[in-house]
Amino acid sequence: MESEFIAWLGARLPRHEQLTLGIGDDAALVRLRERGDLLISTDMLMDTVDFHLEQVDPRRIGRKAMAVNLSDIAAMAGRPLAAVVSVALPRSAGLPLAKALCEGFLPLAEQFDLALAGGDTNSWDGPLVISVTILGEPTERGPLTRRGALPGDVILVTGAFGGSILGRQFDFEPRVAEALALRARYELHAGIDVSDGLTLDLSRLAAASGCGAVVEPGKIPIAEAAREFAEHEPSRGTALDHALSDGEDFELILAAPPDAARQMLADQPLGVPLTAIGQVVAEPGLWQVDAAGARRPLEARGFLH
Amino acid sequence: MESEFIAWLGARLPRHEQLTLGIGDDAALVRLRERGDLLISTDMLMDTVDFHLEQVDPRRIGRKAMAVNLSDIAAMAGRPLAAVVSVALPRSAGLPLAKALCEGFLPLAEQFDLALAGGDTNSWDGPLVISVTILGEPTERGPLTRRGALPGDVILVTGAFGGSILGRQFDFEPRVAEALALRARYELHAGIDVSDGLTLDLSRLAAASGCGAVVEPGKIPIAEAAREFAEHEPSRGTALDHALSDGEDFELILAAPPDAARQMLADQPLGVPLTAIGQVVAEPGLWQVDAAGARRPLEARGFLH
Repeated sequence: MESEFIAWLGARLPRHEQLTLGIGDDAALVRLRERGDLLISTDMLMDTVDFHLEQVDPRRIGRKAMAVNLSDIAAMAGRPLAAVVSVALPRSAGLPLAKALCEGFLPLAEQFDLALAGGDTNSWDGPLVISVTILGEPTERGPLTRRGALPGDVILVTGAFGGSILGRQFDFEPRVAEALALRARYELHAGIDVSDGLTLDLSRLAAASGCGAVVEPGKIPIAEAAREFAEHEPSRGTALDHALSDGEDFELILAAPPDAARQMLADQPLGVPLTAIGQVVAEPGLWQVDAAGARRPLEARGFLH
Repeated sequence: MESEFIAWLGARLPRHEQLTLGIGDDAALVRLRERGDLLISTDMLMDTVDFHLEQVDPRRIGRKAMAVNLSDIAAMAGRPLAAVVSVALPRSAGLPLAKALCEGFLPLAEQFDLALAGGDTNSWDGPLVISVTILGEPTERGPLTRRGALPGDVILVTGAFGGSILGRQFDFEPRVAEALALRARYELHAGIDVSDGLTLDLSRLAAASGCGAVVEPGKIPIAEAAREFAEHEPSRGTALDHALSDGEDFELILAAPPDAARQMLADQPLGVPLTAIGQVVAEPGLWQVDAAGARRPLEARGFLH
């Protein structure tokens, strides 16, 4: 099946100027735009864990596999460059499934000017597994890591949180353009994308920076889907609970010095809202302040692999 | 489990000067030695297809997952640079399995000066899947593709073929150093590594070059394991049959102009034998010649994914 699939893919793929040698050899050759460092990240999605093949159009699965990797490059404020995709296909599904996965991620690759540089297509008796590795280039300002946050920094987020399971977990927009736009115009100290949960990923950014974070729960932008979810299944928590811990929002958390944050909030330079939800503090840990200003611990919750 | 595993791995990993930012952020940062192009390749191995977890030390599985990717870089005559590893671990096996896989591939990474630049660790109810993506750099002479063979070229192979299932499928040596040594000293036109079968991969090299190939079966170097296999299970073919089609030898097939080939054969510059097994011809297809010089078609056999 692999040779038939590669032939189909060869005809389907657009030419990409960065791809000096494309699929079909033992390795592909990617031309780098500039000398320097390279970003690399990888994510594997599995049936029953990250999606349910029986319940969802496989094109959305293919799209998600690429989008979560693009989100990692966005979190580093990098430019996407190339990706490779490996799949283990259930034997019964075969070529139509392989093609549907591609039809899901190829539009995203085109949107983000990403060269599809190869892959590995396998059949087996197990469930669908799809693994994507992405390459990117940091901009002139360097990669935006999790490590640079300083006490006093404002914690900003793009978009809104919670309830991604109702659909946004597949259809989210990786914040690549947003990260590049902010990185180019404003001073940013640290960044991370929310894959596992707003509080969990924020606690990771804070820990990597050797700091803590104080969140004002009243300021957290709550997605419509989180409200919907809470309304239909009140036993599973409030809309705010979902926003704090659901995960798969794939929005950005950024730490910026107060002046830059003030400017960003005033400019609102993105198509998506930018919201201040708290502050970086010197004391390690995660905290919340109530309306009266009292501070108490906030549990870092989310999806642990 | 993932955070515990990453902590263990962070302590276990040697520092690598090419890795400006290692595991633990949204992406890793790899420093390129030189401006230019980048080789990228990926291979996914699955329980019951590429190995049987019940029957083999998981360290050998981890080693194999890395070694097959190194073999792809060898086939392009490139220098290995960095790799990322994703795994789907059976929930029952967990951390000990993850560590054993690492203990299998880390020595190989060190041997080939390969930076481990990240990965994705997942647990699920399915069988073990391990996916590796490798980056490499072509040398000054450029990448050695499958495409450059010319009629009249001599077909050379490293090592011996057949019976890899008796153990060499796990313990083979990726021919990275051999490919680099030959590429530096001699003119080579094309190359491929034998993953799916000598005749099948030779037919791929010939087809990619728009040529055919004539093989002298009497000259094929047959591995001891192929003889062993044929002796114990004569119904499954002769030792030569195994050498022609077993696959997972991970030796190199090279096409070189006659003068260069003659010199290489006389020099025998590698620790492993270099053998001429036939010739590239203009007419597409795969052929064998008998001792009397008569030519007849040779079936391209091997493992089709």
